[in-house]
Amino acid sequence: MPSQSDSLGFRCGFRCSVTGLNLLLQALLLIRSFFGFPDVSDNYSSLVSRASFTSSPVSYPAFQDVNHMVIFGFGFFLMVLRRYGFSSTGFNFLLVVLGVQFSVLAEDLLCRTAGCSLWSLAKALVSMTAVVISTGAVLGKANPVQLIVMTLVELIFFYVSRWINRKFLEVPEHLSVMHVFLFGAYFGLALASRFPEAPPGLDKNRSTPKSELFSVLGTVFVWVFWPSFNSILAGSEKMKTVLSTYLALTVSAVAAFMLSALTSKDGKFRMADIRSAVLAGGVTVSYTAELIKHPWIAMILGLLGSVITILGSHCVQRCFNPALKLQDTSGVHFTFGLPAVLGAVAAVVLRVVARGTETQWNELSRLGYDAFVNIGAFCQTISTALVTGLVTGLILNIKLLKAVHVSKYFDDQSYWEVSLKMISD
Amino acid sequence: MPSQSDSLGFRCGFRCSVTGLNLLLQALLLIRSFFGFPDVSDNYSSLVSRASFTSSPVSYPAFQDVNHMVIFGFGFFLMVLRRYGFSSTGFNFLLVVLGVQFSVLAEDLLCRTAGCSLWSLAKALVSMTAVVISTGAVLGKANPVQLIVMTLVELIFFYVSRWINRKFLEVPEHLSVMHVFLFGAYFGLALASRFPEAPPGLDKNRSTPKSELFSVLGTVFVWVFWPSFNSILAGSEKMKTVLSTYLALTVSAVAAFMLSALTSKDGKFRMADIRSAVLAGGVTVSYTAELIKHPWIAMILGLLGSVITILGSHCVQRCFNPALKLQDTSGVHFTFGLPAVLGAVAAVVLRVVARGTETQWNELSRLGYDAFVNIGAFCQTISTALVTGLVTGLILNIKLLKAVHVSKYFDDQSYWEVSLKMISD
Amino acid sequence: MPSQSDSLGFRCGFRCSVTGLNLLLQALLLIRSFFGFPDVSDNYSSLVSRASFTSSPVSYPAFQDVNHMVIFGFGFFLMVLRRYGFSSTGFNFLLVVLGVQFSVLAEDLLCRTAGCSLWSLAKALVSMTAVVISTGAVLGKANPVQLIVMTLVELIFFYVSRWINRKFLEVPEHLSVMHVFLFGAYFGLALASRFPEAPPGLDKNRSTPKSELFSVLGTVFVWVFWPSFNSILAGSEKMKTVLSTYLALTVSAVAAFMLSALTSKDGKFRMADIRSAVLAGGVTVSYTAELIKHPWIAMILGLLGSVITILGSHCVQRCFNPALKLQDTSGVHFTFGLPAVLGAVAAVVLRVVARGTETQWNELSRLGYDAFVNIGAFCQTISTALVTGLVTGLILNIKLLKAVHVSKYFDDQSYWEVSLKMISD
Repeated sequence: MPSQSDSLGFRCGFRCSVTGLNLLLQALLLIRSFFGFPDVSDNYSSLVSRASFTSSPVSYPAFQDVNHMVIFGFGFFLMVLRRYGFSSTGFNFLLVVLGVQFSVLAEDLLCRTAGCSLWSLAKALVSMTAVVISTGAVLGKANPVQLIVMTLVELIFFYVSRWINRKFLEVPEHLSVMHVFLFGAYFGLALASRFPEAPPGLDKNRSTPKSELFSVLGTVFVWVFWPSFNSILAGSEKMKTVLSTYLALTVSAVAAFMLSALTSKDGKFRMADIRSAVLAGGVTVSYTAELIKHPWIAMILGLLGSVITILGSHCVQRCFNPALKLQDTSGVHFTFGLPAVLGAVAAVVLRVVARGTETQWNELSRLGYDAFVNIGAFCQTISTALVTGLVTGLILNIKLLKAVHVSKYFDDQSYWEVSLKMISD
Repeated sequence: MPSQSDSLGFRCGFRCSVTGLNLLLQALLLIRSFFGFPDVSDNYSSLVSRASFTSSPVSYPAFQDVNHMVIFGFGFFLMVLRRYGFSSTGFNFLLVVLGVQFSVLAEDLLCRTAGCSLWSLAKALVSMTAVVISTGAVLGKANPVQLIVMTLVELIFFYVSRWINRKFLEVPEHLSVMHVFLFGAYFGLALASRFPEAPPGLDKNRSTPKSELFSVLGTVFVWVFWPSFNSILAGSEKMKTVLSTYLALTVSAVAAFMLSALTSKDGKFRMADIRSAVLAGGVTVSYTAELIKHPWIAMILGLLGSVITILGSHCVQRCFNPALKLQDTSGVHFTFGLPAVLGAVAAVVLRVVARGTETQWNELSRLGYDAFVNIGAFCQTISTALVTGLVTGLILNIKLLKAVHVSKYFDDQSYWEVSLKMISD
Repeated sequence: MPSQSDSLGFRCGFRCSVTGLNLLLQALLLIRSFFGFPDVSDNYSSLVSRASFTSSPVSYPAFQDVNHMVIFGFGFFLMVLRRYGFSSTGFNFLLVVLGVQFSVLAEDLLCRTAGCSLWSLAKALVSMTAVVISTGAVLGKANPVQLIVMTLVELIFFYVSRWINRKFLEVPEHLSVMHVFLFGAYFGLALASRFPEAPPGLDKNRSTPKSELFSVLGTVFVWVFWPSFNSILAGSEKMKTVLSTYLALTVSAVAAFMLSALTSKDGKFRMADIRSAVLAGGVTVSYTAELIKHPWIAMILGLLGSVITILGSHCVQRCFNPALKLQDTSGVHFTFGLPAVLGAVAAVVLRVVARGTETQWNELSRLGYDAFVNIGAFCQTISTALVTGLVTGLILNIKLLKAVHVSKYFDDQSYWEVSLKMISD
């Protein structure tokens, strides 16, 4: 228990930093947006009217789906801890709205493209998913100030990683954004390893049936809107992406139930496993959905995604995490990281096979180059994520940002005015 | 209380059967989908690209609505029992994703039509509603293995019933699918009658305000998306179907509140009544929405649907169920069965009147034939549902499927690893 | 505690009045809809088929969004009181479905326009928002009979106010409907001032983390669908309205967190503040979204909306409400009233500036007239709302409508059959 003065210092500091940081950012964003378009006075309107309601590459209903999924779905998906309901959904909301603004304006500054359109908002929302996934790894451990700093840093690093992929490794724009899961999961893992461990006796980092139920609610939303997510930035192959994703999701949901019963101690289902594994199919096909020619490929990928998630959740938590001292509150490693790696491998194989059948396996050197470039893109993403995640983790734990004491982990009361009656008891 | 060895046997058996069944099915579905298209290598892509994002008869936002409604809406709609939250929503999810795959591939096998398109997925989702409704009747009594067997058997029988209607009774494709409510409710009732009754003192088959609140959440979702459900397979009259359904739903919602206050003991509203009756309008107009020429017809049908549901819930539960030893955990008989019968009668009347005014009541023999064929279609559906439901009920209670002991009815703990703190207390 | 006979009288009276009122209304609406179209027999169908699924000015997905937002979003948004969950969401549902029917048929009667189309349903839903907001001010105090009377009276008065605005103050149709927030909030406030105050010791008018969580769920829905709400009736500038609203909402969400931490006692976030303030941006830009040429204007308006809401919630509740004896259960004054006033001011300024730059500030008298007419429209709306709200408040508290005793305020048990275990403890 910190002393009174400490606590006062924390309060004052916390209030000042949260407010100051928000204010500074919001002011910068406003100024940027004010001076952003000095030459044409009707920049915004002309751009917007050109991208009309129906002919826009991003349709409004699809944008709405992704918006709903990222803000509502992930917000409730993360609500697993019994005393952390307000923070899970509230901070997710704060980070998404902040990150979307930052992302739109940063992209506008760096690319000199478009101003604000539905397309740029959609891309910003998809990029923000990386941050949302990373917060899952440090759920309950990072305070809002740390999370805000993390959001900005991660968005910049993700942008850099995407830029390298686009520039040097020939990854098309909409696929480079789909590296969110890979980047988000490994950034989050590296980041979380720099946070002090929770004491073993802490009772707050478990879930109750109540909090699980809210989390299931969020999971179903994420599951339902996943086809929209995978297809929103796709070009001409939107419907194919939707169908492949839907099939992969259905198979991975069936496999989730099957494997959960198979791996649990007394043959019962475990909700935590199922929540992770039903989404695995969506992650796995995210890079490859538009390459998939036959339904059975999508189905196999969904099945493998689910298998790797459930096995991962058992092996990684028992063998791997203690050895590497990894921490991962809501299991982003096996929920998003492992299926994304599988998806990356599948993408390389499918691309090489597609090119191979096209050229009737004659240009083997070209094939090798293709495979090399594709593998390179994924290795670059993972390594950038791990390195920048570690660096960010070090930055976040400097004294200035007032890291939470381990005894206050996983508790809404540190950040919210809540009455004594707790959330999930 | 079963003995230790029994319990062990149950565990092992349960785990093996759930896993085995899932595995077998998933493998069959994969093999089917693999060998399904041997002649053309780009079958999937060509079909998909033909059904493009905008010109497809089933638009993606409408599909999304129905998907959301069936998976999320019905999943939470069924969450009425206080200790059965995980199972209600979880098993609904499992059955829907399994049934949709089975339905798509079975239809593809039998009809040799389309491969996988948004249209076939939408039809599969609508068909699955029959299964979802049937599960409502045995909610808390059937174990997952029984439910999975039931799903497959019911989908096949529903397909047969639809085929008879299409082939011999001239029911158009999209209307034959709308018999889901009729088929699902009576199949479920017949099925439930073969399950042993719950002991009278069991405290677990009641709802708490908490579980009711989640159920209300699901009900509102089902209500909101019902116009999409009724119109998704309709041809050229989509907007008319949407408007008629919406009007019927609003009137039945008003009537639900009115009648609930009128029939309850001390003039208060009863949430269980309201949950059932607000949906009655949607069920009632499901066959007839595209025939309705005037708003008042839709409104009258919504009103009558609500009346029959509320009166049904009182009369049926008091007089009818004890006499016939019917069991119906979540009241699917009056929620879906009775309004569907009313809708069937209304469809016959409206069709005859429409044909009559068209021919100025000259061709009475033609009219009689019309009425006969229409009535025949509904009678065929109900009788097939009842007979096949009974048969399925007998099959489900064989020793092999390890029916749940009555003392373990309505309890998440039989199937899920839950901590001691219960879900809805 | 009322005596037994009183209680009996209440029961009987309540049952009779709710049922009778509903029945009467529903009968009137049915009769109206029956006799509504005597001349053309296929009025409904022709109108409907003309407004086809794609070319309609109101697209079905957008209508679905608004429908979802008003019925589900606001229903759960109002679920803040710990023992008033069923009533919050249930009565909201009842009032919306009743009000929509009434609104469609009244408009049809008065304007002799269209019959029933998606456009008229959308306008009815938007108008109903005024009623939903007003119910927030008397949440837990008005019984269903009072609420139904209020709905009808308020819809009529709102129609009159809109008619004056359209006829004499040159406000276009779709903007006149956007006065809902202004009208709803001040009507509700005036109305609430006529209700007896809750006794100070009453424990039931507070929220618990559980009820807050459901309220957050509703708030996120309202937030996500707000761009659809603001744009549904807009003409050619739909996409611009969507983008401006989205930007304003994001900025006001960020500001909400910032200001909540700044104004609370120990630098923590307060969920009640955040729930109000995240929506402020949407209210503020509702009149002006289509006038906004630059993203930064929308962002500034969102920021100001959030500031006025949070400051308002502190000042108004501490200084203003006790002085004027205002009551406002769910804070509609600062959630919807103050941002709407700000939006009104902004609309006048933006319109004058737009006209000024257009005419290069030459026709000052024309500018003055413009400003006068615009200000006039807002003053007319507010004053009509206040006066008619007061009158309605007086009408609602006559003996006939059996106002609830103050000791029974904020309690589901007065209206619903609930078991002893309470909703939010």
